[in-house]
Amino acid sequence: MTNYRDAVENALANNGLLLPDNGVPVTEPLEKAPQLGEVPQPLRSAMRYSLLLPGKRIRPVLLLAAYHLLKEDWSRAIPYACAMEMIHTYSLIHDDLPAMDDDALRRGKPTNHKVYGEAMAILAGDGLLNMAYETMLSAPITKDEPVMALRAMEEIACRAGVRGMVAGQTLDVTLEGHVPTQDYVRYIHAHKTADLLTAPVLAGMMLAGATEEQLQNGRKYGHSIGLAFQIVDDLLDLEGDAKAMGKDTGMDAQRGKMTWPTVYGVERAHQDAQECIQTAIDAMKPFGEKGAFLSELARQTLVRRS
Amino acid sequence: MTNYRDAVENALANNGLLLPDNGVPVTEPLEKAPQLGEVPQPLRSAMRYSLLLPGKRIRPVLLLAAYHLLKEDWSRAIPYACAMEMIHTYSLIHDDLPAMDDDALRRGKPTNHKVYGEAMAILAGDGLLNMAYETMLSAPITKDEPVMALRAMEEIACRAGVRGMVAGQTLDVTLEGHVPTQDYVRYIHAHKTADLLTAPVLAGMMLAGATEEQLQNGRKYGHSIGLAFQIVDDLLDLEGDAKAMGKDTGMDAQRGKMTWPTVYGVERAHQDAQECIQTAIDAMKPFGEKGAFLSELARQTLVRRS
Repeated sequence: MTNYRDAVENALANNGLLLPDNGVPVTEPLEKAPQLGEVPQPLRSAMRYSLLLPGKRIRPVLLLAAYHLLKEDWSRAIPYACAMEMIHTYSLIHDDLPAMDDDALRRGKPTNHKVYGEAMAILAGDGLLNMAYETMLSAPITKDEPVMALRAMEEIACRAGVRGMVAGQTLDVTLEGHVPTQDYVRYIHAHKTADLLTAPVLAGMMLAGATEEQLQNGRKYGHSIGLAFQIVDDLLDLEGDAKAMGKDTGMDAQRGKMTWPTVYGVERAHQDAQECIQTAIDAMKPFGEKGAFLSELARQTLVRRS
Repeated sequence: MTNYRDAVENALANNGLLLPDNGVPVTEPLEKAPQLGEVPQPLRSAMRYSLLLPGKRIRPVLLLAAYHLLKEDWSRAIPYACAMEMIHTYSLIHDDLPAMDDDALRRGKPTNHKVYGEAMAILAGDGLLNMAYETMLSAPITKDEPVMALRAMEEIACRAGVRGMVAGQTLDVTLEGHVPTQDYVRYIHAHKTADLLTAPVLAGMMLAGATEEQLQNGRKYGHSIGLAFQIVDDLLDLEGDAKAMGKDTGMDAQRGKMTWPTVYGVERAHQDAQECIQTAIDAMKPFGEKGAFLSELARQTLVRRS
């Protein structure tokens, strides 16, 4: 995991699209106009701030590891891995806005709009979503393998969009305080979380030229690890340590969010997470030794503390 | 123009991604959970509301007409034309938010967040931006001509992003009330407006397999018509009729926005718009009779009242 994650951290920090800066948040526009075509301050700073907060980078790692299931030269897929993290980060920035979840802390730091203001947080999110596509479209692997790249991008776009992640967010936000049902919580968890973990697995495999049968296993793995990931998240919010989490706990209940333990109870939630992980591990078996890394990643999902 | 515009209106209203509805805004979530993979209410309604407000559809029309400069079968480019309108619409929804320009009216109707609330307006904008890429990526022309399609998408992504439209929005929002300069207003107008009119011209031509020389003329045309379009917009806000505009006038001055007439004066602004249009018309000359439609469109930009 270290290799994949380091490669992603390095690519995100030194991405040509986001010129390096000195790490100090710039919240005011510069004294003079930027050059035409230059990413202006404070937008650049706001995007870097959220994108470079220390994180698990699980989506990019999934993408690279999924590519690596089938092909050795996984570094070619790094732009797509970065794109997944950009999409994830944009969704967090917008989700934290006052009109949405109104969160003050994220990964232990003030949320984007607390530092840069709401207008810049909206634009930084928009910018990151668009930059995800820009990054994929301009990647060397896209020029070299246009057909496989288009397939991977389409998968990501579909799962990030209004039939995927945005759909999940919509129900998550609009149903606060409604009577929870199994159908609602399954829809929310499938789309808000599992889609953004399934997308990198499938996109990584597609970039590497996977067969339909291999993709079926990838789909099973991604969906299962995604669902388990969100169930564990729900449980951590209920039972976890705010300090280890880097954000307040108990917020789901306070907001009347639909969570797995609310609908199914705590004990069943633990069981379901366990079962999902087993399904994910089983889905990696056809890849033999090659699947060991992703199986282990699934196992770790169960024991995480943040 | 009627043909292009009708084709776009029809495609937007009946887009498979956005199931048709009965035109009544749905502002509450449905009583039961949507099917997995279904675009949920009220998101679907919020996206349709803004996307289907009557408009000039100038960006999609530019894309189809630019394609038609080089190839006859322009209807193949319709998904890309729709994508341009989705990007434009998302930018308007987010721009109208309270944290941004805080506008209550758009095209004579209440803005998206006035009808659906801020959270849904943020998500509808996110959804439309993402759907623009989804629409292009799943288009038949993309499967048939992957290399030209990738080139067109990259051009659109670049000009819609943090070195393009989002960059222009950033300065437009953060510089309210600052001392206006020529450099600032040129940056804002080039990126906020001209990029989103240049992108469809170039993308349309790229989809049709344009040469470098043809693209140079397209770039000149797009940038010139885009700059003229924004200068005329500035002048209409200063001198225009609120009723014809469908929104309040005099708002730029009230907000301390950087506009062309503020920096260059009203007379020079009229002259500059005129010159831009002449440049645009000249750029169409190499296309002979084929360029007549786009030349006429440029001319109309000068005399528009809304």
